Amino acid sequence: MKTVKQMIKETNTNAAFYQAVFGIEKEGLRVKSNGQLALTDHPHEFGNRNFHPYIQTDFSESQLELISPPLASVQGSYNWLAALHDVALQTIPLDESIWPMSMPMVLPDESIIPIAKLDNQKDVKYRETLTHKYGKKKQMISGLHYNFELDEQLISRLFESQTDYPDKNVFKSMLYLKLTKNFLRYRWLLTYLLGASPIVDDSFFTDQEIPKNYVRSIRSSHYGYVNRPDVSVSFNSIEEYVHSLKNMVEKGLLSEEKEFYSAVRFRGTDKAEKLLTQGISYLELRGFDLNPFDPFGMSKRTIEFIHLFCLYMIWMDETATVDEIKLGEEMSQLTAMEHPEQKSGFQAEGLRLLNEMEEMLQSTNGPKEAFHFIQEAKKQIGDPKLTIAARMIKAIEEKGSYIEFGLALAKQYKEEAVKRPYNLRGFEKLEMSTQLLIMDAMQKGIQVEVLDEQDQFLKLTIGKHIEFVKNGNMTAKDTYIAPLIMENKTVTKKILASAGFHVPAGEEYTTLEEGKEAFWRYQQKQIVVKPKSTNYGIGISIFKQLPTKEDYEQAIEIAFKEDTAILVEEYISGTEYRFFVLDGKVPAILLRIPANVVGDGKRTIKELVDKKNEDPLRGELKHHSPLERIELGEIEQLMLKGQSYTIESIPKKDTIVYLRENSNISTGGDSIDVTDEIDESYKQAAIDMSEIIGAKVSGIDLIIPDPTLSSTKEHRGYTVLEANFNPAMHMHAFVYKGKGRRLTMGILKMLFPELWEKETINA
Amino acid sequence: MKTVKQMIKETNTNAAFYQAVFGIEKEGLRVKSNGQLALTDHPHEFGNRNFHPYIQTDFSESQLELISPPLASVQGSYNWLAALHDVALQTIPLDESIWPMSMPMVLPDESIIPIAKLDNQKDVKYRETLTHKYGKKKQMISGLHYNFELDEQLISRLFESQTDYPDKNVFKSMLYLKLTKNFLRYRWLLTYLLGASPIVDDSFFTDQEIPKNYVRSIRSSHYGYVNRPDVSVSFNSIEEYVHSLKNMVEKGLLSEEKEFYSAVRFRGTDKAEKLLTQGISYLELRGFDLNPFDPFGMSKRTIEFIHLFCLYMIWMDETATVDEIKLGEEMSQLTAMEHPEQKSGFQAEGLRLLNEMEEMLQSTNGPKEAFHFIQEAKKQIGDPKLTIAARMIKAIEEKGSYIEFGLALAKQYKEEAVKRPYNLRGFEKLEMSTQLLIMDAMQKGIQVEVLDEQDQFLKLTIGKHIEFVKNGNMTAKDTYIAPLIMENKTVTKKILASAGFHVPAGEEYTTLEEGKEAFWRYQQKQIVVKPKSTNYGIGISIFKQLPTKEDYEQAIEIAFKEDTAILVEEYISGTEYRFFVLDGKVPAILLRIPANVVGDGKRTIKELVDKKNEDPLRGELKHHSPLERIELGEIEQLMLKGQSYTIESIPKKDTIVYLRENSNISTGGDSIDVTDEIDESYKQAAIDMSEIIGAKVSGIDLIIPDPTLSSTKEHRGYTVLEANFNPAMHMHAFVYKGKGRRLTMGILKMLFPELWEKETINA
Repeated sequence: MKTVKQMIKETNTNAAFYQAVFGIEKEGLRVKSNGQLALTDHPHEFGNRNFHPYIQTDFSESQLELISPPLASVQGSYNWLAALHDVALQTIPLDESIWPMSMPMVLPDESIIPIAKLDNQKDVKYRETLTHKYGKKKQMISGLHYNFELDEQLISRLFESQTDYPDKNVFKSMLYLKLTKNFLRYRWLLTYLLGASPIVDDSFFTDQEIPKNYVRSIRSSHYGYVNRPDVSVSFNSIEEYVHSLKNMVEKGLLSEEKEFYSAVRFRGTDKAEKLLTQGISYLELRGFDLNPFDPFGMSKRTIEFIHLFCLYMIWMDETATVDEIKLGEEMSQLTAMEHPEQKSGFQAEGLRLLNEMEEMLQSTNGPKEAFHFIQEAKKQIGDPKLTIAARMIKAIEEKGSYIEFGLALAKQYKEEAVKRPYNLRGFEKLEMSTQLLIMDAMQKGIQVEVLDEQDQFLKLTIGKHIEFVKNGNMTAKDTYIAPLIMENKTVTKKILASAGFHVPAGEEYTTLEEGKEAFWRYQQKQIVVKPKSTNYGIGISIFKQLPTKEDYEQAIEIAFKEDTAILVEEYISGTEYRFFVLDGKVPAILLRIPANVVGDGKRTIKELVDKKNEDPLRGELKHHSPLERIELGEIEQLMLKGQSYTIESIPKKDTIVYLRENSNISTGGDSIDVTDEIDESYKQAAIDMSEIIGAKVSGIDLIIPDPTLSSTKEHRGYTVLEANFNPAMHMHAFVYKGKGRRLTMGILKMLFPELWEKETINA
Repeated sequence: MKTVKQMIKETNTNAAFYQAVFGIEKEGLRVKSNGQLALTDHPHEFGNRNFHPYIQTDFSESQLELISPPLASVQGSYNWLAALHDVALQTIPLDESIWPMSMPMVLPDESIIPIAKLDNQKDVKYRETLTHKYGKKKQMISGLHYNFELDEQLISRLFESQTDYPDKNVFKSMLYLKLTKNFLRYRWLLTYLLGASPIVDDSFFTDQEIPKNYVRSIRSSHYGYVNRPDVSVSFNSIEEYVHSLKNMVEKGLLSEEKEFYSAVRFRGTDKAEKLLTQGISYLELRGFDLNPFDPFGMSKRTIEFIHLFCLYMIWMDETATVDEIKLGEEMSQLTAMEHPEQKSGFQAEGLRLLNEMEEMLQSTNGPKEAFHFIQEAKKQIGDPKLTIAARMIKAIEEKGSYIEFGLALAKQYKEEAVKRPYNLRGFEKLEMSTQLLIMDAMQKGIQVEVLDEQDQFLKLTIGKHIEFVKNGNMTAKDTYIAPLIMENKTVTKKILASAGFHVPAGEEYTTLEEGKEAFWRYQQKQIVVKPKSTNYGIGISIFKQLPTKEDYEQAIEIAFKEDTAILVEEYISGTEYRFFVLDGKVPAILLRIPANVVGDGKRTIKELVDKKNEDPLRGELKHHSPLERIELGEIEQLMLKGQSYTIESIPKKDTIVYLRENSNISTGGDSIDVTDEIDESYKQAAIDMSEIIGAKVSGIDLIIPDPTLSSTKEHRGYTVLEANFNPAMHMHAFVYKGKGRRLTMGILKMLFPELWEKETINA
């Protein structure tokens, strides 16, 4: 029979060998800032736990479970963990954070610990059974599950290269079974390296002796999250596994199959019995303590290392026997109970395993950075003080107590998650609006798949309901013609004008001659001459005074240098507002004003600018900050000079000093939400315009001289300048002044109204 | 009081003076190829006459009336006339054409001449009254009405420059009244220049004496289309006009106001009485004979000349008195009855008018080409043989008879209209699909407005129902996300694959390294390596043999030169078909095969190519021909060489010789409609794919090895290569072989289903 090594070599599948699909499930207790277990309900913002794919509760109502979807990359999985932590930490109350360790804080009386408030009474019943059997406190131990699936194409290629297994599913199960057996034999090494529960508050132990010393992993020890000793399930073959597991349930030693707390679980079927026909699809590795030094419970390097470890379990020639598995279990137990600063009792085997993993990497041309992970592990074998558990001891002693150590980290991770609410960690490469939409979808329990990162293309799913979204706002709810209309300024104007809306008078010209000849039309007006497709103001001339023929003709020539068609329009004075129209409503109106500072009679302009720039919302737009820092460059200094200031001037109290003429956010302008201050008549006008265009989502720019006066059919109080498709949503979410408007949630509501209906029904 | 000249000078509105809005209504009898009046019904393809804005019947069922919408350019109006003729001539039976003259062909007995079969019984009644009063034959005289409106902004500017008229509407009516009076005074000049009914078959005259000689215009004479002599209406003022007209109706001399056949009619109100309050909006000039030398009844130069003539009627200082108007009428009558080859009796006045028109042009900096029109008219004053009527006499005598002359032209114009059915004259600058859509809309009676020519942007209207269309197929019926999905090949593939459709296996790579490392996945497959955004095959490598590592890596490098992301896909062999999906149906499937000729055992390849290129469908795509001519350039000759041919070889009978490897229509490929030959299962698959994407209109490219075998869920007979938005529609309409499919009509049906429902109800 061919070895796996031979098969990989023959099929030249080195690269595929390192392909895998990962999924992480991470539990964690909600903790209040005073260190007590949070007894509040699972936030209603997380929507319905009946189907929420990412954010669940485990045993307790206070025990968050964050679940990353299956992804073919470690980086991707880690990104999801990060994002889900952002969403969870931003959603739970401000004075709550997530306890960063497997072993809990000081817990209240068992009667007070709340069981998860689930709809399904069977699930509640199961938790009551567990309470009865293990006590609530043991159920509060949190851990991390690591789901691991080999590349499907790899399995096919290996399968085709051999003749011993005629059935692909059987072949696949053989690989996973081998992995499992060897994993159980050698997992003590992971316990050594990753054990991270050296201590817990004495109050945790109600009916047991208390460990006398620090250990590597209380959780992985017999003190921890384990079945009673009379539970025994065989991993020798799928058949034996299924029969022994069924037997345990039949005997009543386990209330359900899922009560079997093994270090490895076979996955892919809802019932163990089906494994007999369908085989194993993937493995769930369940033995991992939360690493408090990583904000998400497990570092990316660790995810990578476990992956390598699993691969080596397949790669090695031998497969552990029943006795060897038993031995392995004992070795893991012993390791768990070792003092973390003590050398491993199995040092030599550990080093041998790591050397062999290194050989595997060499012989399969494995990823370069993987060698570093092996080196790191070797160092930890040599120096136990480098292990997580030992580092925890040091930190706990420095902090004074286990509780203080945990609480400090919990607070730190909370702060890190809430300080940039406009960014979703793990998804920072996407545009801000798409980040916000994903954040909202994750919160609500809508499945998210990034179909194309460069293209900001998302697939959102609830059950059978699928929606696609591009750039956070382009959806199937909008018509195809709407953005095409808005893209063409002339067409937009024609359509709005013929529907009776007030647009700036003007015409399009396609030849220089035509444009120049039309001077008579404009000689008594303030006008704007611009290329038809305007971009960043290039080629635009504004005549706030009546134009002379010469200046007019020059403006025409300038505009034609930029485009084959130009527009001449009357210039409308007044303040410009951006109306965000969404599904027949105006949930946000924004006023943008040029970069400025307000004097306090004490500080210089430079100091005022520095102060204003300290606002955490101000950064660089290109790095996805909602507001841009104010510069003090040439343009700003020239602007100051025009007002007889320098950057060292000290403006009087309450004097507004403008540093720019233009009101763009990109040059340090302020965004001010004025949604509640604008007369309804303008909102209705913007809604009507969007309807005429056929747009569900649009950004309508209106000039309104006095937004407190109603606009009527006889006295229109506005002029519409533009209708924009793909209007920026993040701009409204994080404003310099006024109330932020979460438009992305409105998009989700438009796409999945059923989610809001359900909420109403449940409420 | 200021003169118009002064006002124009002061307001500097020279250019505006030449701005106007035009509308043409042109009547014409349907004639059979044997010269008889066509007695067939007005074609049902023209839809419902109750609202058709462009194609109507006048008095008789056989009398087409083509109506151009109001447009601010002469060229635009002429384009519309051309287009409406194309539509009308392509729609009426093949053996019918439009009689090109005002005076009819030999008419059948009055009892046989069909009155227009209108729904509204009041309209039918009116025609019966006319029959009774004038006889049917006189009602068969056809003419051309010329609607003329001054620029609104011009009127405002002139109005503001004076103080005599405090009301703008009164001022405007004054201008139109002046124009009318002077027009009636001087219109004899137009009768001289444009009279075009020198003769008619004697049978036309039933109860009158027959004119002894050729005349300039029977139609404009007392023989023609005039009211009885006792009808008298004053043009002295609006009040007098309204009262005298009402008086005529009250006395029963006219059955309705519209029976008043004046040379000028005041327009803008449904009832004359309303003119008293609303004033005149525009004028309808009604005195024009059809010019048989122009395929559309009036040449563009004539439209321009009449425009100049009208402007001069405003420009001149004097306004004709009641007596002068009477004189003018008599002069026009006399002119109408002059022999066309005879000099005008009013030569001197004619020349004076033309000289003054020239002065007007000079003093207002009028359009340069206008001077030519004046020169031409002057020549015709000097030489009557140059007038239309005189030229008709010459041509009639050459042809042998009035009837033969008319019939020959009618047939010629018919041929010109049907020979390029893929082009709509007047709209040739637009893409072919947009031309076809406009053609269909014009036929059906859907109002068409070109909002943006460059951008192929149309507004379509029926009553209050408005639809916008870009590129002939982009509409509000499609979702915004659908084209965005189709634009992104990776996203399309992911979506189709996850919905269970068969797509080529493959992956996207965003780095060179990633792409190269994936070789193991493809080493045992035929593959295609391509940039993610493919354009015209650049950067694509196809491996029909298994790729070597070196060739594969080179292909990866080539693809990355074109894009930041590349795709590697399995190569699927088989024939590719384009499925056009429209609103849940597949109305067209196209097979494209490479440029080729079929031997006949006699002709050389060059001769066979020349013969094939004679097909009127073959021209240049860029000039909007549906098929491209086959070239015999370097590539084709190389291809021939590979088959041991030269262009002088004579292939055996029925041997197919391919001249190209690629099947693009743009390199001379053949398009073959196979809609009826493909198994329904594939159509359903294409429909299902479009539905998943959310597209109402899409072009789905399927590879099908055997389209006669059904595709089932177990044995999928296809692989989907691409889903295209903006799929070419014209390609299916005019095919090399098979049945053309009019997809543009399907688009209209999707947009305006009510039009088809009505049809069903009426049928």
